[in-house]
Amino acid sequence: MHLSEITHPNQLHGLSIHQLEQIARQIREKHLETVAASGGHLGPGLGVVELTLALYQTLDLDHDKVVWDVGHQAYPHKLITGRYNNFHTLRQKDGVAGYLKRCESKFDHFGAGHASTSISAALGMALARDLQGEKYKVVAVIGDGALTGGMALEAINHAGHLPKTNLMVVLNDNEMSISPNVGAIPRYLNKMRLSPPMQFLTDNLEEQFKHLPFVGDSLTPELQRVKEGMKRLAVPKVGAVFEELGFTYMGPVDGHNLEELIHTFTQAHKIQGPVLVHVATTKGKGYAIAEKDQVGYHAQSPFDLATGKAKPSNKPKPADYSKVFAHTLVKLAENNPKIIGITAAMATGTGLDKLQQKLPKQYIDVGIAEQHAVTLAAGLACEGMRPVVAIYSTFLQRAFDQIVHDVCIQKLPVFFCLDRAGIVGADGPTHQGMYDIAYLRCIPNMVLMAPKDEAEFQRMIVTGVNYTDGAIALRYPRGSGQGVPLMEEGWEPLPIGKAEILRQGDDILLLGYGTMVYPAMQAAEILSEHGIEATVVNARFAKPLDTELILPLAQQIGRVVTLEEGCLMGGFGSAVAEALLDADVAVPIKRLGVPDVLVDHAKPEQSLSSLGLTGPQIADTIREWVVPAAVEAVRS
Amino acid sequence: MHLSEITHPNQLHGLSIHQLEQIARQIREKHLETVAASGGHLGPGLGVVELTLALYQTLDLDHDKVVWDVGHQAYPHKLITGRYNNFHTLRQKDGVAGYLKRCESKFDHFGAGHASTSISAALGMALARDLQGEKYKVVAVIGDGALTGGMALEAINHAGHLPKTNLMVVLNDNEMSISPNVGAIPRYLNKMRLSPPMQFLTDNLEEQFKHLPFVGDSLTPELQRVKEGMKRLAVPKVGAVFEELGFTYMGPVDGHNLEELIHTFTQAHKIQGPVLVHVATTKGKGYAIAEKDQVGYHAQSPFDLATGKAKPSNKPKPADYSKVFAHTLVKLAENNPKIIGITAAMATGTGLDKLQQKLPKQYIDVGIAEQHAVTLAAGLACEGMRPVVAIYSTFLQRAFDQIVHDVCIQKLPVFFCLDRAGIVGADGPTHQGMYDIAYLRCIPNMVLMAPKDEAEFQRMIVTGVNYTDGAIALRYPRGSGQGVPLMEEGWEPLPIGKAEILRQGDDILLLGYGTMVYPAMQAAEILSEHGIEATVVNARFAKPLDTELILPLAQQIGRVVTLEEGCLMGGFGSAVAEALLDADVAVPIKRLGVPDVLVDHAKPEQSLSSLGLTGPQIADTIREWVVPAAVEAVRS
Repeated sequence: MHLSEITHPNQLHGLSIHQLEQIARQIREKHLETVAASGGHLGPGLGVVELTLALYQTLDLDHDKVVWDVGHQAYPHKLITGRYNNFHTLRQKDGVAGYLKRCESKFDHFGAGHASTSISAALGMALARDLQGEKYKVVAVIGDGALTGGMALEAINHAGHLPKTNLMVVLNDNEMSISPNVGAIPRYLNKMRLSPPMQFLTDNLEEQFKHLPFVGDSLTPELQRVKEGMKRLAVPKVGAVFEELGFTYMGPVDGHNLEELIHTFTQAHKIQGPVLVHVATTKGKGYAIAEKDQVGYHAQSPFDLATGKAKPSNKPKPADYSKVFAHTLVKLAENNPKIIGITAAMATGTGLDKLQQKLPKQYIDVGIAEQHAVTLAAGLACEGMRPVVAIYSTFLQRAFDQIVHDVCIQKLPVFFCLDRAGIVGADGPTHQGMYDIAYLRCIPNMVLMAPKDEAEFQRMIVTGVNYTDGAIALRYPRGSGQGVPLMEEGWEPLPIGKAEILRQGDDILLLGYGTMVYPAMQAAEILSEHGIEATVVNARFAKPLDTELILPLAQQIGRVVTLEEGCLMGGFGSAVAEALLDADVAVPIKRLGVPDVLVDHAKPEQSLSSLGLTGPQIADTIREWVVPAAVEAVRS
Repeated sequence: MHLSEITHPNQLHGLSIHQLEQIARQIREKHLETVAASGGHLGPGLGVVELTLALYQTLDLDHDKVVWDVGHQAYPHKLITGRYNNFHTLRQKDGVAGYLKRCESKFDHFGAGHASTSISAALGMALARDLQGEKYKVVAVIGDGALTGGMALEAINHAGHLPKTNLMVVLNDNEMSISPNVGAIPRYLNKMRLSPPMQFLTDNLEEQFKHLPFVGDSLTPELQRVKEGMKRLAVPKVGAVFEELGFTYMGPVDGHNLEELIHTFTQAHKIQGPVLVHVATTKGKGYAIAEKDQVGYHAQSPFDLATGKAKPSNKPKPADYSKVFAHTLVKLAENNPKIIGITAAMATGTGLDKLQQKLPKQYIDVGIAEQHAVTLAAGLACEGMRPVVAIYSTFLQRAFDQIVHDVCIQKLPVFFCLDRAGIVGADGPTHQGMYDIAYLRCIPNMVLMAPKDEAEFQRMIVTGVNYTDGAIALRYPRGSGQGVPLMEEGWEPLPIGKAEILRQGDDILLLGYGTMVYPAMQAAEILSEHGIEATVVNARFAKPLDTELILPLAQQIGRVVTLEEGCLMGGFGSAVAEALLDADVAVPIKRLGVPDVLVDHAKPEQSLSSLGLTGPQIADTIREWVVPAAVEAVRS
C-alpha cells in the first residue's frame, strides 16, 4: 500500500511493521518535499512519524479522539487523514492549514496553535464520554516543552485526581521546545530518558538480594518484608513525579521503534485512569541536516533538500523587525546593566538569542510560560531592574491577567515588546496578533505605541526602556521593515503620547497607527491625484492618544479615517472615536482595520488585500465615502 | 511587649517563644475582633499567625523580601508592620486594604488578590538581587490551593532549574482553597502530611536492618551496599516531587509550633538554591467555630464572636445574584443532563455548591485553574455537552487566551457566567470586574449580555444554556438584585442581540447595559421633572448590539448617553459609538462608566457615587451636558 492510498487512518489497522515502515518512509519523503517547496514546520513532524502510525494502529479514529498539542507536529497525521492530495497547498491561501482545524477534517478533533492546551481539551472529552456512557479512547499528545506551560500542569493536577477517567497522555519528549527546553521538568524528563526502565531496576535489586550469601533463594519473613519495602521504595524511581500525581507512568519508549511503540500503546489502553506514555523522539528524525540543527529546522522557509539551505529570495528584503529589535536591545543593554530581556521559549523568534549570546546575564528564557514571564518581570521591576518582556502579540494573551494584576495595578515599569502584532500570514487564526490593542488599551497605567517603520521602531525601543511611570507596550509586525536607514543618532526617548504630522491637506484627516501609516501615506498620494487632499498623522501612541494634536485637526477638517492592523472592536479607531466624542467633537469617522472575523492563513499581502487595507484600496474606500457621486461618475 | 507596641517586624528579633506566643494570642484577638466587627477574611489569617511570627523572627524585613500569595492571609503581617492602630478601618473606604498593597506599606513587597503569583514575583526579586550583587533573602508564602494554579507550577519549573538562586517557598498547607482542594497535587501534599518525616523513615529502616538476626551491628560490604542503595531510594519518598523538580524539601512542619518553625526556617535559610518548607497549618486556628467550619469562615461578613453567627442585617435584602444563578442553573440542569457547571475553586462564591449538592455528576471543580477550566469546557463542548463556566469577571482574565484560542476560534458553544462583574466593593482593585466587556468584546464568535435585574438574569441563563452558535458570556454583579419577583414562566431564550425600550421621550436617548439600566430609569424620572424627556433602552446585549433598534432612535433623538458598570475604554459605550459611526450617524454621545483609573476598596455604593454613577448624579451630568445654560441659571 502506498501512502497516497490512505485516506482514512483506520486503513493502518492490520499493517505489518514492515508495511508501516514503508508508510513512514513515504510520509517523511512527502513531508520533506512539501516543506522544502513551500515552507512550514519540519523537525516536529519528522520526529513523530512512528509515534503517529503506531498510535493510530491502536486506535479507531472513527470513534477515538486524539488531541495534538500545538499541532505543528501533525503533518504526518494530515497525510494519513485525507489530505495527501492537497498537501502541496500547505500553509497557502485556501490550502491545507499548518495547524489542526476542526473545520478542515473530522479527524482534527481539536484545533490549536498555542501550546499546552491538549490535556485540558482531552480531559473535557473524556469526561463528556463517561457522562454520556460512551466507550471511546481519548489521547492527548503533548511535547516536553509544552508540558512546562502552566495550563498543562493544571490539567495534570486535575486528571491525576480522577482515577476512573481513562485518559492517555503521550509525552512526545524530543528535549526541545523550539529551542532547548528550560526548567526542572524537562531536566527531570531527561534524567528519565537516561535511566534504565523501572522494571530493570527492581529486578536487579531482587537479584542482588538473592545473591547475598546468607540469603539465598528463600528469604526469611523479615527480609521478605524489607525486600517488599525496597521494591515499594524503588518503584517510583522512574516516573515518580507522574506516579505521585496519579498517573500510571510508562516509559521511556524509543519513539522510532514501531514495535515497541505499538506494544506500549496497546498495554497503555488497558490501564484504568490516567496514563502517561513517555516517548523519546528525535526532532527532525530521518533528515540528517535537521537532526543536527534542531533549532534551525524547527520550521523553515523554502529550502534546498540536498543542502538544507534556504532558497535565495528573489529580491533582497529590508531588515526584519525581530532582527532590528535584537540589534537595538543589545546595544541599549550593553550600556545599561539593568536591562533584562525575557522570552518564553521564543529566543530565535523574538531575536533575543542575540542578547543571550552577547549578554547572557541579561537574558532569561522561562520556557513556555508566558504568565510566569510577566510576573517574574514584575518582580524584577520591583527591585529596580528594567525588564523587557518580548512575547508575540498572540502569546501575550496567555498573560493578560498578569499584565492587569501584577504589573498595571501596581504601576510597575515593565516594557512589553509584542512581535507579530497584526497579520502574521501562513500561521493563520491562532497566531494573528489582532487583539493586543483592544486587550491592553482597557488597562490603566499602560502606554501603547507602534512605529511606522524600523527606524521609529528603534526610537520606541529607547522610549520603552526609559519609561518608568508604569507599563508600556510596543507592537510591531512580523517580517520586514520599510527599508529606511536604521537610526544612527537621536537615541533619546520619544515624548509619550505625541503624534507627528506627516502630510497636510484640508479634505480628510488620516490617522494611521503603526504599520498602517505607510499605506495611509500611499492612499493620500492617490487621493491627491483625484483632488482630495489628506492630512496624514502618524499617531505613534494609541494610549495616551495625542488629543492635543488630533482634536483641533479633526474639528477643522471635519472627516476622520483611522487605520490599524488589528481588530476594530475596541482598537485604535475606537480610541480616536472615544476621544472625539468625549470632547464633543461629533465628526464622521471611518475606522479601517480588521472587522469582527477570524483571518485565515494566507500570505500577509493576500490577507491585507482581502481586508481592503492596501494603500490603493484605502484610497478607493475613502473616495467612495467622501465623494460617492464622483466615484459613480467615473465608474459609469 | 504588647502587639500595639510593634510597629516594625524587626522588633520580633530576640523575643522568646513565650513572648511570641503572647504576641500570637494578641494577634488572634485583634484579628477576630476586627473581622467580627467589619467583616473580612478570617480562617486564612488565623492559620498563619505562628508561621508569620516565626518567619519574621528569622528575617530582616528592612532588606529581606516576603511575597504573600493572594494576601488574604496577611492580616497578621499587617498587624506587626505598622497597621495595628488603623486596623479597625479594615476594608473600609480609605482604610486598611484587605490585601497587600505596595503603596500601603514598605513591608508589602508585592501586592496581590488573585492566587498563584507569589513564586514568580519572588523569583524575579531573587534574580534582581543576584544581578545587583545584593544579599537579602526572598521568601514566597503560598497556599496549597494556589499551588495548583498553573503559573505557580511554571515558576516552580523555572526556580527548580536555578540551583544558585536562593529562594525560599513556604508552602502554607491548610488542605483548603476556599473549599477543600481539588487535584493530584493537594492529594500528594496530604499524603506527605500523613507521612512520618523523611529522616525517621530511613533511620527506621536502618534499625530494621540492624535487628535482623543474621546481620547484627556490623554489616557485610554487600549488605552495606544494599543499605546505601535503600537509603538513596528512600530519600525521595517524602517531598520526592519537589526534590525531583530541583527544590530542597523540608517538612512537614507543625505550623503552630513556633519553636519547630523557627528552627526549620533558620535551617532553610542556610540552604543554597530553591528550598520548599512544607508547613502544615489549620485554617481558623484558635477560633474553634472557624476550625470546625473552614469553608464558612474563610471570609465573613460582620458576626457575633461568641456564637459565630452573622449579625442580622438591618433590612432584608433582595436575592443575591449568585443564589439566583445557582437556583436557576440547578432547575435547568435537572431537565438537561448535558449541562455541566464548572468552577475554579469557587464553589460557594459562585453558588455552584448547590449544583454539586443536587446533581454532583453535572458539577466539576477544577481547583484554582481558570485556564484549564475554560479549555476543559471547550473539550466538553466538542462532545456535545453544555458547559457553563462560572468564574468571576476578574478571575476570568486568567483564561483570556483560552477563550480566544480554544473556544472562540473554534466557535464552540461554551457559556461563561461572570459573577462579580463591575464594582465589587471591599476587595478593591485586584477584584474589580472592570475589564470583561472590553476584553471579551474584541473576540469573534462571542456574544455578550447583561441583565437589568434578577428576573432578566434568569432569562439570560436560559438564553446562554440554549445558545449553540459559539461562545456566550453573561456578566452580573456582586450582591443583591433589584427585588423583583423571580421568573415563574417564560423560560424561553431571549432573542440574541435584541434590546428593549423601557421608556420613551424625545430629548435624549439613554442606553443602559446591565446594572446601569435601573439608574438610567431613575435618572430619566429626575430629568423628566426638569422637563427633559428621555427614551431609555435596556441594551441587554453589548455584542451583537441591537443596531436595528438603536440607530433610528439615535438619529431621531440626536443625543445619546451610554451607561455601563465597566471600563469606558473599549466597553459598551464604545460599542455604541462604533455602531453609530459605522452607520455614519454622527451624533453626540456621552459615555458614562468607569474611566481609566483603578477603583479602590470601598462600599459599592461609595465607589459608584465617587464615579458619578448613581441615578441622581447621572441626571445631573446629563442636564449639564444638555442644557448647560439652564443649569447655570438654576445654580446662580
